[in-house]
Amino acid sequence: MEQVNIAVVGLGRMGKRHVHTLLYRVPRARVIAVCSATPEEVQWANNNQEYKEFGISVYDNYNDMLTHPKLAAVWISTSTDVHASQSLAAIERGLHVLCEKPLSTDLEEAQSVVDAAKKHPQLKVMAGFSRRFDASYRDAAVKIHDGKAIGDPFVVRSNTCDLLDNIGFFVRYASRNGGIFVDCAIHDIDLSLWYLGNPVPKACWAIGTLQHHPELKEFNDVDNAVGVVEFWGGKIAYFYCSRTQAHGHDVCTEITGTTGKVMVNVFPRANNVVLADRLGLRNEVQPEYWQRFEDAFATEANEFISSIVRNEPVPLPMETGIVVMRIGRALQEALCTGNVVRFDQNGNLAT
Amino acid sequence: MEQVNIAVVGLGRMGKRHVHTLLYRVPRARVIAVCSATPEEVQWANNNQEYKEFGISVYDNYNDMLTHPKLAAVWISTSTDVHASQSLAAIERGLHVLCEKPLSTDLEEAQSVVDAAKKHPQLKVMAGFSRRFDASYRDAAVKIHDGKAIGDPFVVRSNTCDLLDNIGFFVRYASRNGGIFVDCAIHDIDLSLWYLGNPVPKACWAIGTLQHHPELKEFNDVDNAVGVVEFWGGKIAYFYCSRTQAHGHDVCTEITGTTGKVMVNVFPRANNVVLADRLGLRNEVQPEYWQRFEDAFATEANEFISSIVRNEPVPLPMETGIVVMRIGRALQEALCTGNVVRFDQNGNLAT
Amino acid sequence: MEQVNIAVVGLGRMGKRHVHTLLYRVPRARVIAVCSATPEEVQWANNNQEYKEFGISVYDNYNDMLTHPKLAAVWISTSTDVHASQSLAAIERGLHVLCEKPLSTDLEEAQSVVDAAKKHPQLKVMAGFSRRFDASYRDAAVKIHDGKAIGDPFVVRSNTCDLLDNIGFFVRYASRNGGIFVDCAIHDIDLSLWYLGNPVPKACWAIGTLQHHPELKEFNDVDNAVGVVEFWGGKIAYFYCSRTQAHGHDVCTEITGTTGKVMVNVFPRANNVVLADRLGLRNEVQPEYWQRFEDAFATEANEFISSIVRNEPVPLPMETGIVVMRIGRALQEALCTGNVVRFDQNGNLAT
Amino acid sequence: MEQVNIAVVGLGRMGKRHVHTLLYRVPRARVIAVCSATPEEVQWANNNQEYKEFGISVYDNYNDMLTHPKLAAVWISTSTDVHASQSLAAIERGLHVLCEKPLSTDLEEAQSVVDAAKKHPQLKVMAGFSRRFDASYRDAAVKIHDGKAIGDPFVVRSNTCDLLDNIGFFVRYASRNGGIFVDCAIHDIDLSLWYLGNPVPKACWAIGTLQHHPELKEFNDVDNAVGVVEFWGGKIAYFYCSRTQAHGHDVCTEITGTTGKVMVNVFPRANNVVLADRLGLRNEVQPEYWQRFEDAFATEANEFISSIVRNEPVPLPMETGIVVMRIGRALQEALCTGNVVRFDQNGNLAT
Repeated sequence: MEQVNIAVVGLGRMGKRHVHTLLYRVPRARVIAVCSATPEEVQWANNNQEYKEFGISVYDNYNDMLTHPKLAAVWISTSTDVHASQSLAAIERGLHVLCEKPLSTDLEEAQSVVDAAKKHPQLKVMAGFSRRFDASYRDAAVKIHDGKAIGDPFVVRSNTCDLLDNIGFFVRYASRNGGIFVDCAIHDIDLSLWYLGNPVPKACWAIGTLQHHPELKEFNDVDNAVGVVEFWGGKIAYFYCSRTQAHGHDVCTEITGTTGKVMVNVFPRANNVVLADRLGLRNEVQPEYWQRFEDAFATEANEFISSIVRNEPVPLPMETGIVVMRIGRALQEALCTGNVVRFDQNGNLAT
Repeated sequence: MEQVNIAVVGLGRMGKRHVHTLLYRVPRARVIAVCSATPEEVQWANNNQEYKEFGISVYDNYNDMLTHPKLAAVWISTSTDVHASQSLAAIERGLHVLCEKPLSTDLEEAQSVVDAAKKHPQLKVMAGFSRRFDASYRDAAVKIHDGKAIGDPFVVRSNTCDLLDNIGFFVRYASRNGGIFVDCAIHDIDLSLWYLGNPVPKACWAIGTLQHHPELKEFNDVDNAVGVVEFWGGKIAYFYCSRTQAHGHDVCTEITGTTGKVMVNVFPRANNVVLADRLGLRNEVQPEYWQRFEDAFATEANEFISSIVRNEPVPLPMETGIVVMRIGRALQEALCTGNVVRFDQNGNLAT
Repeated sequence: MEQVNIAVVGLGRMGKRHVHTLLYRVPRARVIAVCSATPEEVQWANNNQEYKEFGISVYDNYNDMLTHPKLAAVWISTSTDVHASQSLAAIERGLHVLCEKPLSTDLEEAQSVVDAAKKHPQLKVMAGFSRRFDASYRDAAVKIHDGKAIGDPFVVRSNTCDLLDNIGFFVRYASRNGGIFVDCAIHDIDLSLWYLGNPVPKACWAIGTLQHHPELKEFNDVDNAVGVVEFWGGKIAYFYCSRTQAHGHDVCTEITGTTGKVMVNVFPRANNVVLADRLGLRNEVQPEYWQRFEDAFATEANEFISSIVRNEPVPLPMETGIVVMRIGRALQEALCTGNVVRFDQNGNLAT
Repeated sequence: MEQVNIAVVGLGRMGKRHVHTLLYRVPRARVIAVCSATPEEVQWANNNQEYKEFGISVYDNYNDMLTHPKLAAVWISTSTDVHASQSLAAIERGLHVLCEKPLSTDLEEAQSVVDAAKKHPQLKVMAGFSRRFDASYRDAAVKIHDGKAIGDPFVVRSNTCDLLDNIGFFVRYASRNGGIFVDCAIHDIDLSLWYLGNPVPKACWAIGTLQHHPELKEFNDVDNAVGVVEFWGGKIAYFYCSRTQAHGHDVCTEITGTTGKVMVNVFPRANNVVLADRLGLRNEVQPEYWQRFEDAFATEANEFISSIVRNEPVPLPMETGIVVMRIGRALQEALCTGNVVRFDQNGNLAT
């Protein structure tokens, strides 16, 4: 059986999980290398018995890893600030790329990756918007796009609410993630474009508050925010992002149309268990997006690998993320300035 | 406006609530008297400011109360052992009667009330199966009986599960209530007859266990029990009764038919509130059947009073309870003996 | 028993229901009159058998009705444009007033009623924000205000979404209702002030769309809108209002705090029934706010009447509605202009 | 990396899915062969492109397949009547065995496999009770067995309700599956033993009905049945099995204890999507147990393979199924005879 030799770069929480996904759920992929610039992560990988069993080489230098003679593809799961440069380097080496969102917090840099990918049409270069691979979000898309379930969709409400992080994990990366609307709402923005039929943004506004992480103030960021986007043609999307939920990872989306509404995960549940006791009836909630989207990551990885094996288009080309990022940055600007950010009919910032 | 002068006999937890229902939700009724044989209850009523405002007379003797010259109707909410005799006495005085279930734990005595009611057709004599007046149970009945929602109904599952009573309230009455299937399951049996189209019982079996109230052993009773009833014609009902729930009053019913299933209150909820916190998502549960069936009691009372005012048939004649009681007692017998209790095709106990 | 003689003015859908509530659920009130300026409604009332039984006089002229010698209180349930003038006239006649929201779409006029009420402290003059009397919203308030359930509340999301009105009922009144944020969101704004501890508005923005009722365009109104309000002190409220839902009356509120979230009616349910058939599992939804808030109206009416009988403060004084209206009108202005509307630290419009 | 060479025998609906699970989710297994005695299935497998890519050999004779020199393990997914003989043959060939439930409808035959497994302690011989590997059922077990969540468990209610099979698939196998309590309830019985701490059966009774499949009558079977089991020590389990659900595969379990209740999948949901339209709010339901238990099968397969690789005990030894089968057959006997079936204190049938 043909297998695609792949490496995972970045061995943070998600990088390790992507290795796991590739090992356990993607039979046509073969993980031959991993890489991290963080010494603790490199050491952890070197000591990992499972990695040894599966014959995975561990690198502490990305460019060195790219020279691995058998390498065919990389899954980039590092911090956002190096996504673009690592993608470009891989493309230049003739490697297929699956890059986690967002490609970059800088739109020009993001565009440069899109351009590089276009110059190498034989390479599969894909944006990692994992929710697009989730069974529930896909079911919602089928229901919406067949035009029968809810008529014409015109409002999307979407939340990305993380469990309060008491160990400071996310704050460490806060300076590099582009702000709450770029880091958190990016999936919600992407979903709203998907479900509303790629409308063009017209105006947006946002407000936020600091409730648990006052240290974000120095990055002009907040830990809870609400943003609203108006699109040309009478469509609306609005978002709530939070870093501080008590009950778990709570990601939901509602799409309202002219004859109905589709709700995705409005009541989050960790599993099918309900406990009845003196407090009433209750269910637990997934702690992180990993538990919520584990299957979506497996689908994403299989479809990426399959596009390589069969030489077919990737399910989500890189340019998908460009408009998303433009809106995310506009919301972040509105959040910082307090002003409405407006776009012309082509979706370019109005001057 | 014509008002029906009514008295409530029994001022236990439910008697007081029935007075409240009549005062606040039944404008065509006028509570002119209450009665209790319990001195504490009489004293409580005598001191009750609201009763004074509404001009309610308090009696400590039922027969005295019956001589009240303006009295037209009584709502009997005493313990089961006097339901029948109080109903008979009221009928003899020419009064309309709404008697709480069950009419009696003795089938002959119950029949004597039914017979007395038949002899006085001008009197409205009604069985208090309150769930028949609940909006959800009625909606289920409409869905089932129109034949479209679930096809032909053939299995009923029904639970009556009470919150654990740590103050010994129910145990005090346990010697008189006829046992768990007579006291608890009677509504469930009634519902199963209603939804299944009054099928005739063929056989039943039951088992039980003592988990919290070992003192019930002396009454040959249990605090949790499961019973199954087979009806002639291939229909089935099964019941779970419990005195010991931790989470509240949990009463649910499922009716399965050939093309669908109707579920009533399978997830009990005290109200529309859900709390999300570190334990997950939870809702509270009603503590008692009063909270669950408060509106049903108001509907029941209004329909009873309306049948008097308009001289129309009562919605639930007394005989409704006779077959219910026969099945309840058969289940109780199966529970005690461990044997299957069988009925002939007329629903009489097989010999 | 002392009864408060009350009249209901306005016999539209809600006026009739308020009469019903007073007749069936408020024993200390006595409806002695109703009034409507609409001939069809007057005729309907004159022919109403129940009104005759209860001895209710029917008026076609409000001022005539006010001269009824026994009248003590009025419940004003007319269209918004006459709320204030009718309230003022009643106050001048020395009558207690329960006036449906909003008091007026004109802030000065609304203030004049508040002022008049203050001049007559012996009169009970109350704002009809019915959701404040709903058991679930009250339970949420208790949970939030005790400070333990969710910590410090800082974000409120609240929706008022009506079933699509295909018979043109609401459009007929659209020219007088002040616009979607004044007519629909007013309860949501009120709830957000209640739950967030009466914060002062700082800025707001809103967008809307026309999906089913293009005729609203001439009133500068929309049939679906999203609005966001920032309060001084880092609190946020955001609203979605819709006139065009397919599934029913869907009113929900979520209050997020530092340690938890309270959700009210996020999954609307008409009752406790779930139907399982080839489409899956489903529950019906209440068609109108009447079904959702019937109990709340009864509580509201009883508390209003009780404040008269006991000469105690009304639960919701008229001034409650002033800040609410100010925010509602600012959202409506933002909707019309596309601009952010800002307030100073006293909650006055910034110039 | 060491991989266990495994074959799947039986290429019906589940056999194909087990191959898929092994290929996609069990990296330490290598499917080297499949086998079916059904010509259409053999042909299907021979034409299967994926099987070719993965290098899977296709056999039409089980004994031939067993001679494959590299084979280490077999997954037996044939019809129940050959489970035992195929297990015995594999054990004799020195192969590890994962055999789908039930081992046999004949208790002696089942015991012979258990005995053979004991004689070959180096072989991993495992019973395929897939629900034991489901995340929700495991979460329930953890909650129950730690003794804190619900106190002492004493009642289990468990359902296995299949979607109505209009194409006659299951009826074809009905003559060989041992009846509804052996084929359907076996998982429910197993769960009740697991959660109740392996109690010893004391008595059981069952009733059933034929609603859609009258042709089952010739096998003394029914398409809907309710069974109750009493255990020594005051514990109770009761089951509802159905072949005729309209809404999907509905498998739920409730475990009641002295201080709480755990509910598993009481509201079945296909995914996280809810559709709101004029019918109300609804979710779809999984059509088959495959969709419900896909992850459980992957966990089961990985744990079986891991027990081989690490030479550790299998998570579920064969004897687990013996008591389960004894109860299943007793319920089936009660169903056929209408009589209570009783056991002595050792769990042997009372004579």
